[in-house]
Amino acid sequence: MLFPVSWTNPPALPSAHFLELAMQRQNTLTKPAGSLGQLEAIATQLASMQGSELPTADKIHISIFAGDHGVCAEAISAYPQAVTAQMIANFASGGAAISVLAKLLGATLEVINLGTVTDTPDLPSVINARIAPSTRNFVEIDAMTSQQVTKAIHFGDEAAQRAARAGCHLFIGGEMGIGNTTSAAAIACALLNKNPIRLAGPGTGLDSAGVRHKAEVIIRALQRHNDDQTPMAVLKAFGGFEIAALAGAIAGCAARGIPVLIDGFIVSVAALIAVSEQPDIRAWLLFSHRSAEPGHQAILDALKATPLLDMGMRLGEGSGAAVAVPLIRAACALHNNMASFDSAGVNVGQNDAPQSGATNRND
Amino acid sequence: MLFPVSWTNPPALPSAHFLELAMQRQNTLTKPAGSLGQLEAIATQLASMQGSELPTADKIHISIFAGDHGVCAEAISAYPQAVTAQMIANFASGGAAISVLAKLLGATLEVINLGTVTDTPDLPSVINARIAPSTRNFVEIDAMTSQQVTKAIHFGDEAAQRAARAGCHLFIGGEMGIGNTTSAAAIACALLNKNPIRLAGPGTGLDSAGVRHKAEVIIRALQRHNDDQTPMAVLKAFGGFEIAALAGAIAGCAARGIPVLIDGFIVSVAALIAVSEQPDIRAWLLFSHRSAEPGHQAILDALKATPLLDMGMRLGEGSGAAVAVPLIRAACALHNNMASFDSAGVNVGQNDAPQSGATNRND
Repeated sequence: MLFPVSWTNPPALPSAHFLELAMQRQNTLTKPAGSLGQLEAIATQLASMQGSELPTADKIHISIFAGDHGVCAEAISAYPQAVTAQMIANFASGGAAISVLAKLLGATLEVINLGTVTDTPDLPSVINARIAPSTRNFVEIDAMTSQQVTKAIHFGDEAAQRAARAGCHLFIGGEMGIGNTTSAAAIACALLNKNPIRLAGPGTGLDSAGVRHKAEVIIRALQRHNDDQTPMAVLKAFGGFEIAALAGAIAGCAARGIPVLIDGFIVSVAALIAVSEQPDIRAWLLFSHRSAEPGHQAILDALKATPLLDMGMRLGEGSGAAVAVPLIRAACALHNNMASFDSAGVNVGQNDAPQSGATNRND
Repeated sequence: MLFPVSWTNPPALPSAHFLELAMQRQNTLTKPAGSLGQLEAIATQLASMQGSELPTADKIHISIFAGDHGVCAEAISAYPQAVTAQMIANFASGGAAISVLAKLLGATLEVINLGTVTDTPDLPSVINARIAPSTRNFVEIDAMTSQQVTKAIHFGDEAAQRAARAGCHLFIGGEMGIGNTTSAAAIACALLNKNPIRLAGPGTGLDSAGVRHKAEVIIRALQRHNDDQTPMAVLKAFGGFEIAALAGAIAGCAARGIPVLIDGFIVSVAALIAVSEQPDIRAWLLFSHRSAEPGHQAILDALKATPLLDMGMRLGEGSGAAVAVPLIRAACALHNNMASFDSAGVNVGQNDAPQSGATNRND
């Protein structure tokens, strides 16, 4: 089985021409230059990615990838593994945080089931993409086979393809998988050469002894898998299915020119894998929020990313990204609809108060 | 002329009963406890203020208070004073940032003209509340007379009354007034005993020499007005009309049980005045964003406030508060519409992975 083209080829870069036009437009709007802060950068980046003078984030496509983790055998989560399957049903019935947020945004929400240890009924709104009941316990063996990695990346690419066909303006990937902060922390430690003591966090709610144990599990696993530190080998070693699929979806969106709004800790690790494979993918990413999960900052630093929000969220499901969407919509509305100094007859040029207090003042 | 009752009497406090109910509800929702971060606190606070199990931020009332400042004679702004009147026309015609944001939110936007040095036509959507063409130069004399202070507070209280009559769920006050970061910094320095070198900032875009000059102007003014440091005396000494009106509006909302979403630097200073007069007003305030204006943090600290956003905005007009409204709406939607563990059949109690790694593990 071959990787999708989106994974093996670098994407085209966003338009430098439209970036320049958008930056010029920002300078004509009736506000002090730079006074909208990050909203200005968001609008100009989105204009560049969309190749348009008038960026938009109306149509949002949210894909939630769910899967179970063999490493749960090591007692690294505060929640039982059955919650992964139960939450898939909760996504489908509209009761989960991301379901509520998707409805509020008028976004398309799809759930991709990559495999759970407990049975889930076939739900009409859940895409069946079961690879195996779970990944394997990465303390003992590679979490995934090579074929499973390729399959998961394909499932991610297919989500990007659906998003492209739907004409979406912005893609959000989310995840559900009890144990996946352990996978993600292990991947980040391997790729960034960090200490698990720094990157392991409470996840769904471990106490400090639980976090210490989780870090020790990752340390043992890193010792076993220290021969090949390429992104693909690290992904295969530590899983999970949903992280591989997210990396595939991110690459697939970049290849199709779809801006991606990155969620928190897990999705940032998937982005790190994709960007490690193809550095130009970074140009297609916007960052929504800084997670309360303590390892997130190291990953944001590695990706040179400054997210929009920092509200202590640590839920996953793409919820942090969904909460940030209205900020992006506000950035677009301001960029597209504010009056210019000329059109509004606002004249800031003839100042009766000179810019520098040091010259031609008469007080 | 007497002050409004809302100014002289402390407001009732938000409901402790509904705060407790809302916090209980948060713990039943299908998410790890605390994983929605600040959104949980926003929802429970709003439930408490609104005396409702189901908080809402659908109907937003935005009042923009505009006025000119005599201290502009000291060359403390990068923009000419005529911009205040020009921007009033821009608010009315829909071209300003706050106009665009209000439309995006479906919010009611009203503009209150408290007096400008250049003429403004009578615009149907602008409320005529002209007190004088501008405040006086506070380096030489009190910015306002006692009667002007009382008038401005009344105009603010009337905005709160209109908001209450419209049945609004959340009030936003905004401001426009070339020179008003100088007034606000002076007030904050006087009330908090801070050095103007720390609290003076670039405003619409002063360079470093301009900021230094602005701080020197405030230092001179503080030396003149150092006899009476009560909030009312400080407000009278440094102005401006729009800051006094905002303080009146904030007190008026608290008195009427309307939650207030505080914008950036100027509005926070108005809130500081109101809370200094009546400490219980603090319980009615939510904080939207941390301004790039360097003095803002000291005022937030004094008010024990942690705002939702920190995106480098420094525009004023209530724009930071307006940008934060969708976060509050998301907090309400999540609080009101997420499934409970029971209703969704999600069982996190029977953990196959114990919380503490230190006990009953068998690895």
